[in-house]
Amino acid sequence: MNLKIPSPKEIESAHERIRPYIHRTPVMTSSAINEITGADLHFKCENFQKAGAFKARGTTNAVFSLSEEEAVKGVATHSSGNHAAALSLTARKRGIKAYITMPRTAPDIKKKAVEGYGGVISFCEPTVESREETCREVIEKTGATFIHSYSNSQIISGHGTAAKELMEQISKLDAIVTCVGGGGLLSGISIWAKYENPGIKVIGGCPENADNSYRSFISGKLQSHKTPNTIADGLKMPLSELTFKIIQKYVDDIVSVSEEDIVEAMRLIWERMKIIIEPSSAVALATVFKKSDILKNRKVGVILSGGNVDLKNLPF
Amino acid sequence: MNLKIPSPKEIESAHERIRPYIHRTPVMTSSAINEITGADLHFKCENFQKAGAFKARGTTNAVFSLSEEEAVKGVATHSSGNHAAALSLTARKRGIKAYITMPRTAPDIKKKAVEGYGGVISFCEPTVESREETCREVIEKTGATFIHSYSNSQIISGHGTAAKELMEQISKLDAIVTCVGGGGLLSGISIWAKYENPGIKVIGGCPENADNSYRSFISGKLQSHKTPNTIADGLKMPLSELTFKIIQKYVDDIVSVSEEDIVEAMRLIWERMKIIIEPSSAVALATVFKKSDILKNRKVGVILSGGNVDLKNLPF
Repeated sequence: MNLKIPSPKEIESAHERIRPYIHRTPVMTSSAINEITGADLHFKCENFQKAGAFKARGTTNAVFSLSEEEAVKGVATHSSGNHAAALSLTARKRGIKAYITMPRTAPDIKKKAVEGYGGVISFCEPTVESREETCREVIEKTGATFIHSYSNSQIISGHGTAAKELMEQISKLDAIVTCVGGGGLLSGISIWAKYENPGIKVIGGCPENADNSYRSFISGKLQSHKTPNTIADGLKMPLSELTFKIIQKYVDDIVSVSEEDIVEAMRLIWERMKIIIEPSSAVALATVFKKSDILKNRKVGVILSGGNVDLKNLPF
Repeated sequence: MNLKIPSPKEIESAHERIRPYIHRTPVMTSSAINEITGADLHFKCENFQKAGAFKARGTTNAVFSLSEEEAVKGVATHSSGNHAAALSLTARKRGIKAYITMPRTAPDIKKKAVEGYGGVISFCEPTVESREETCREVIEKTGATFIHSYSNSQIISGHGTAAKELMEQISKLDAIVTCVGGGGLLSGISIWAKYENPGIKVIGGCPENADNSYRSFISGKLQSHKTPNTIADGLKMPLSELTFKIIQKYVDDIVSVSEEDIVEAMRLIWERMKIIIEPSSAVALATVFKKSDILKNRKVGVILSGGNVDLKNLPF
């Protein structure tokens, strides 16, 4: 597994590699939300990305970096979320198999997303042990390459292209704000942003109910992970050694936000911007509100990480 | 009241007039929906327009066409929907009053939208007679100019700019599809589309449960209006003499679609495109499905008319 800190050069290469397969997502603004926050916000719409989330950037970079010999055996991961769907779609684009380990208890909508993109699902019990064991068995049987959803340099390099694109699209940003769960997105974003402009502020936001990254950041030590219970289902994983190291080096601040603030930010974006974002994306706007003291009157990039929500189960 | 058929030249002038005040809305595509429909669809996203609907095009043209003497007395209309919100916003931009007559029974969310844009509401009983009488009284008292929501040449010219923009953004369309209620949007669109390309097909879609336009079109005679009961609340008004005349002259076909098909099309756009559209917008995609025989393999512009929905009251 590739576990070194990616260089800006690797993010540049990743961008060249993935460009034919992903969307250059638009950047949107909202005068109404600018008025409410007092900041000049530029939303990078990864909810419009292939498979509905930024994850396709990382998986495309990882899958298209494989040699022919590796690729032919397929790729594998354990995930029930956007990473699983993105990996399945990307594998299909390269014409190889994606083996996805997923708990039996995962919602139907997530199983269907993976199957819809041609992923091969192995079901496990809903425990970390069962998940890892099942995935290991699949890999032993198939020889597939394991692609971790965030603790992987190529995944992080791929995610970093979101910042590269955003800074090409909008010049002179004072800050970039994004959500943080396992930390793959924040890692990639921060490496690129600080490379291009060392003075830019990079701020991460996590749910109070899944605040491993916040506790780790303020204590300076990777903290243990409590069972998270948050509507932002994309942010339930803890930082890894790799992402924590990157975040300590390049990120200026991490804050945590309440469930109420997440839902309120989500409603604001749905109602005012007329776009569908998932709760994890809303964490970024909730973070802007929480850091309004330093972001007021600033030009701020906000990464909207994804738009995959179950319309039958909305928090409004 | 200005009741003649607008010329393409007037749509051009309207575009110059309104350009500083409205969004040049983006055109989006969806490979998933193209696959399902078999057509090459280009969605003109008026859900991202100021005040959340195409209506701002017409009201901006009408309000900014007023002389200083007229303008100073304000504008008036009876509407509880997107026209009322758009007229209020536009009037505020010109620094004049918008007097809106609205039934007491209108949903709170609609009252708030108008008030939020600075409109002055007069409440009436929920009957056509009470609405017209109340509005007439307001006009007598204030001297405001009445701006009908669709039976008005300047409103129609303004709406026609949506087709002008779309045809600038996407070349060589074979057809344009849009929803039809009172017919202001379809009128403006069809005048411009046929002027720029006489061979283009212009197709309107209405709900089966509000099909005055469909019945009028196939019978060649303006039909009486039954009380409509449709989820597409923007399409409950009947054609006027003016819009019927334009539609007879420039529109190739009108079809009607079921409530189920409207909800299904709405869900498809929400889930696949990650954008919020109101049910009236979904009527346009439902129409594409209904006319798939002639639209298959064609390059089709689809007008998404608006994105104002009550998140507490969704059909999913």
